[in-house]
Amino acid sequence: MPDHHPESLVVLNRPSAQAPAHEPNAAAFRLVDPRTPVLSALDQGATRGDGVFETISVGHGRPQSLEHHLRRFERSAAALELPAPDLDAYRAAIGAAIAALPDAASAWAKAVLTRGVEGGESPTGWVYATLAPDHTAVRRDGVRVVLLDRGLRHDVERTSPWLLAGAKTLSYAVNRAAQREAARRGADDVVFVSSDGFVLEGPTSSVLYRLDGGIWTPGTGLGILDGTTQSALFAFLAARGVETGYRLAGPDELARADAIWLVSSVRHAAPVRELDGRPVPVDAALTAEMNEYLAELAE
Amino acid sequence: MPDHHPESLVVLNRPSAQAPAHEPNAAAFRLVDPRTPVLSALDQGATRGDGVFETISVGHGRPQSLEHHLRRFERSAAALELPAPDLDAYRAAIGAAIAALPDAASAWAKAVLTRGVEGGESPTGWVYATLAPDHTAVRRDGVRVVLLDRGLRHDVERTSPWLLAGAKTLSYAVNRAAQREAARRGADDVVFVSSDGFVLEGPTSSVLYRLDGGIWTPGTGLGILDGTTQSALFAFLAARGVETGYRLAGPDELARADAIWLVSSVRHAAPVRELDGRPVPVDAALTAEMNEYLAELAE
Repeated sequence: MPDHHPESLVVLNRPSAQAPAHEPNAAAFRLVDPRTPVLSALDQGATRGDGVFETISVGHGRPQSLEHHLRRFERSAAALELPAPDLDAYRAAIGAAIAALPDAASAWAKAVLTRGVEGGESPTGWVYATLAPDHTAVRRDGVRVVLLDRGLRHDVERTSPWLLAGAKTLSYAVNRAAQREAARRGADDVVFVSSDGFVLEGPTSSVLYRLDGGIWTPGTGLGILDGTTQSALFAFLAARGVETGYRLAGPDELARADAIWLVSSVRHAAPVRELDGRPVPVDAALTAEMNEYLAELAE
Repeated sequence: MPDHHPESLVVLNRPSAQAPAHEPNAAAFRLVDPRTPVLSALDQGATRGDGVFETISVGHGRPQSLEHHLRRFERSAAALELPAPDLDAYRAAIGAAIAALPDAASAWAKAVLTRGVEGGESPTGWVYATLAPDHTAVRRDGVRVVLLDRGLRHDVERTSPWLLAGAKTLSYAVNRAAQREAARRGADDVVFVSSDGFVLEGPTSSVLYRLDGGIWTPGTGLGILDGTTQSALFAFLAARGVETGYRLAGPDELARADAIWLVSSVRHAAPVRELDGRPVPVDAALTAEMNEYLAELAE
């Protein structure tokens, strides 16, 4: 067992009901030592980034917004023409991975589906879970953000579906490189802008901003993810009578906002306190309420 | 040992001299059963497509254009800010993987370097080798190709280096999706076009075309790979007195070409016989000579 921090790993025997099981008579999944190799060097997840994933927050031992995550997982798999994930199998595996943690008060689980070993017939699936880092400081103090070109037009999801924009794939090297570029510029995180000048999303977050009294997000159809945390926060805000909605906006609109947040499953709502070096006001009270709401969120 | 076809796998103990070895006193590499799991589910190659690779053709038991491949491997790693690969270690591992094949007359080897296990200090490196499929028919009969939008401008390598255009990364899901789109359109392969209308490369090949008596390729600096096979063929053509060079060209120039090829390490020169449904002339004699040259190529 690993000695550095609590974690668990569950390997699915049959991640898709449409494909043969890895072992015909084996259990639906097996709990394994997370530090033991489980993947072939021929797995197309590793050789081609050819797979999809979801990262799910765990609060009070329960996966949050699980059904929203699973629907998105299914849509990402469809975009890659992978065999459809068996959502019941993933629900069970996610439950088992969380149950294997000694304390899942604040944790996260990552569900993965790859195209499997080259030349094989079965996709590969696993769920990894571990305790969440303490994000208290960043949720309060916020992040410095830079705008970076995502290279793609805002309409590629419609014109060029083979670019897989809007699918949560394992081909994430660009997201990592963008975060390194942010660090190089003295910032903590990134908001991507389409090549034709529209605000998109962060590498691992959705963007919310407040302008003219409402709270807005770029929304779907722009080659970006349908944010699970964004969606939960819109429900929270609507219940408080705040106008919310989707807006096709340029960086100028973001510059006029009186509050901006990057929101994501595990870090929750991080207020943006600086955008391309210019200070952005932080609404500490509303941010705290958002984070309290997200901490208590169930499906 | 695998029973379906000859293959070999070599895992490097220390893929980068800049990073700690996986096991301090172990040998430089170990030959393992290619069908045994060797990768952690936390390897960032698998979870983020965060790594680089090269696919090297093997002719008469020797890796072809090896030094060109290794220079490109090093440049790709630098673009991702990975620890520099230890090229001596990779040369030895590639040699060992080839030597482990029962017959390496016509084979290929893939060298991989990933950022390693999340939270770890050592990158992961391996070399996989296997026999090459018989590409005789496609080298003679050619491929039907469609032009597909790559989504990115031709100048992103310079303006937006975090997009990693021009690096050979493991984040290859888009290349695979483009090949599926080609199949959907009744074609065999793809030539990508930049969002601003310039011919780029195939998902796994360089484009060569003949026009006005010379043979041209889009060249580097356009967010595309520095083609090892393209480079070898330019040397071959120059020695025959054919003018060669780099051209920034639109699809209109490709449409006027009197021959087009997709060239790559393992398939070598595949003539394009159809471009977006329109027939393209095939120069069978020159194509055969190119492929004979490539079959005999050493470093």
